Amino acid sequence: MTELKNDRFLRALARQPVDKTPVWMMRQAGRYLPEYRQVRAQAGDFMSLCKNTELACEVTLQPLERFDMDAAILFSDILTIPDAMGLGLYFAEGEGPKFRKTVRTEADVDQLQVINTASDLGYVTDAVSMIRRELNGRVPLIGFSGSPWTLATYMIEGQSSRDFMRAKTMLYTQPEVLHQLLEKLSLSVIDYLNAQILAGAQVVQIFDTWGGALSHNAYLEFSLAYMKKIVDGLIKHADGRDVPVILFTKGGGHWLETMADTGCDCLGLDWTVDIGAAKSRVGRKVALQGNMDPAVLRSDREGIESEVKTILKSFGSGQGHIFNLGHGITPDINPDNVKIFIDAVHQFSGSN
Amino acid sequence: MTELKNDRFLRALARQPVDKTPVWMMRQAGRYLPEYRQVRAQAGDFMSLCKNTELACEVTLQPLERFDMDAAILFSDILTIPDAMGLGLYFAEGEGPKFRKTVRTEADVDQLQVINTASDLGYVTDAVSMIRRELNGRVPLIGFSGSPWTLATYMIEGQSSRDFMRAKTMLYTQPEVLHQLLEKLSLSVIDYLNAQILAGAQVVQIFDTWGGALSHNAYLEFSLAYMKKIVDGLIKHADGRDVPVILFTKGGGHWLETMADTGCDCLGLDWTVDIGAAKSRVGRKVALQGNMDPAVLRSDREGIESEVKTILKSFGSGQGHIFNLGHGITPDINPDNVKIFIDAVHQFSGSN
Repeated sequence: MTELKNDRFLRALARQPVDKTPVWMMRQAGRYLPEYRQVRAQAGDFMSLCKNTELACEVTLQPLERFDMDAAILFSDILTIPDAMGLGLYFAEGEGPKFRKTVRTEADVDQLQVINTASDLGYVTDAVSMIRRELNGRVPLIGFSGSPWTLATYMIEGQSSRDFMRAKTMLYTQPEVLHQLLEKLSLSVIDYLNAQILAGAQVVQIFDTWGGALSHNAYLEFSLAYMKKIVDGLIKHADGRDVPVILFTKGGGHWLETMADTGCDCLGLDWTVDIGAAKSRVGRKVALQGNMDPAVLRSDREGIESEVKTILKSFGSGQGHIFNLGHGITPDINPDNVKIFIDAVHQFSGSN
Repeated sequence: MTELKNDRFLRALARQPVDKTPVWMMRQAGRYLPEYRQVRAQAGDFMSLCKNTELACEVTLQPLERFDMDAAILFSDILTIPDAMGLGLYFAEGEGPKFRKTVRTEADVDQLQVINTASDLGYVTDAVSMIRRELNGRVPLIGFSGSPWTLATYMIEGQSSRDFMRAKTMLYTQPEVLHQLLEKLSLSVIDYLNAQILAGAQVVQIFDTWGGALSHNAYLEFSLAYMKKIVDGLIKHADGRDVPVILFTKGGGHWLETMADTGCDCLGLDWTVDIGAAKSRVGRKVALQGNMDPAVLRSDREGIESEVKTILKSFGSGQGHIFNLGHGITPDINPDNVKIFIDAVHQFSGSN
């Protein structure tokens, strides 16, 4: 494969020195970009865009044309696995993801098959291969998956939820059924991420969007244990390099020490955590990725630069910081402010 | 006033020994009780129930008739203050609270008047007086208010929100306008809680439901600073007793040490925090209230008792634990399970 021209992101993940703090944004290929909205309109619905290799590749690269980001992330959805399991993912306009079928009983769980990425999700690995080729070594490519618990919440509820009533009912009344579901999802995620790695993903991130809704003990048993299983099952070296794994539990700031013990390489932080305090807690065991509130991007240059400086200062000196938002960028953001943000990270970390 | 027959709750708040761990539930007077739904139907809409002294008193006492709770909490809403400021609170069926007027500009904030509880919110203090009389010393009565930041989010958004887009836009683009709003709200909350204390509330709790949506620094500046101002401004002794203050920031587990430094007496914990770890962090400076996930109440006797034991064991020996849920009880819960929960706290803490 082509030599990597910008390896800041990989160096920071390995806690090696960098000239400037690397930066990328969760959901950087997305609706805040007019060129994305144009391609999306051309593709039809959201899943058609994910399943169209050329267009998925095109939107993945769009933010890199505008901004000086240090990584690309595969354009896809976290719910491709349950869709491949036959639940029928669709996006009702303005309502978020929904499933035509739900998983609520032991019989429902029994019927689910662990996915085989090659036959069930070839559109994802095709996109990874094409993006990697098109990137031509410009920056590393991140593959990703939802965490088993996060996928399970959508499969059980059938849609997004505020309180996860059905998923938690299963957790507290039929824990063994939930464990069986999470087991099947973990095996699927391992297969899915390994296929992305073999297709060219240089880093993988596990998005545990809803782990933070769980109690301390339930998080350890029903979310983190399965992410650890995935970390254990992933291909560690490919393409002549280590393949780092990033764990991101939104609202998971309480559990950083235990998350770091899974053997992952980096923890994603949401904005509620002080990144300097997080660094004191995990030491050099893992890199840290984050953690500006996406809402800061609604501010002006002064406000954005000030927040970037605050976070850089809180992390302080030493290796292992990847700058990011604390969650995905929202559709209302002006792309000009994204440029201010990305440039500020490089400018102020260079002189730090 | 009448002598208090059950002072477990006050003793635990003062970190004094108790025979059993006291317990109450946030939203214990609420829709999960059929007798509540009956009174609610009689009153008409939700605000009419809050404003009807006799009925508000009746529903406050309902859970105590069924369960062996160690405290009563005033039946009211956290949004009475913005309603009294003229924003026109109403509840659209199944949609949560809404305001007819919003507060989004400097001019909007300028027009707001600090409330005078005696003239603007007499229905609340009337209810406190009547409940206190009807309780006749059975258990202590808790008064409460929303936190300034939490009230501000509803006033700015006009309703509940998932991402607080407008409130955070004000925070990051017009922080001085938000500070002015929070200042007026703080003065109003001080007046409101002191009026409740003078009317008979023996404990007060500040509900910071949305503080956990803020970044570390924004929380300190825009939520906690104003709660500290309120703690400083409250009447400390009334009716021959100290008046303890409980701070509850949902999602605030990162900030316990700083919250404890406000001079409050107790911190409410949501279920994401391990209560034993929280106790190690704050020491004997404050009592801790919490923290079972309300979803556990969907389980059976075995599941509920097991979780109660886990939390009691995590807190361990020593004074200063008030058992509670980590957030309000949800309408779907079977009241029989509430009885199992309340009795389990007393039974297993007695033998601990």
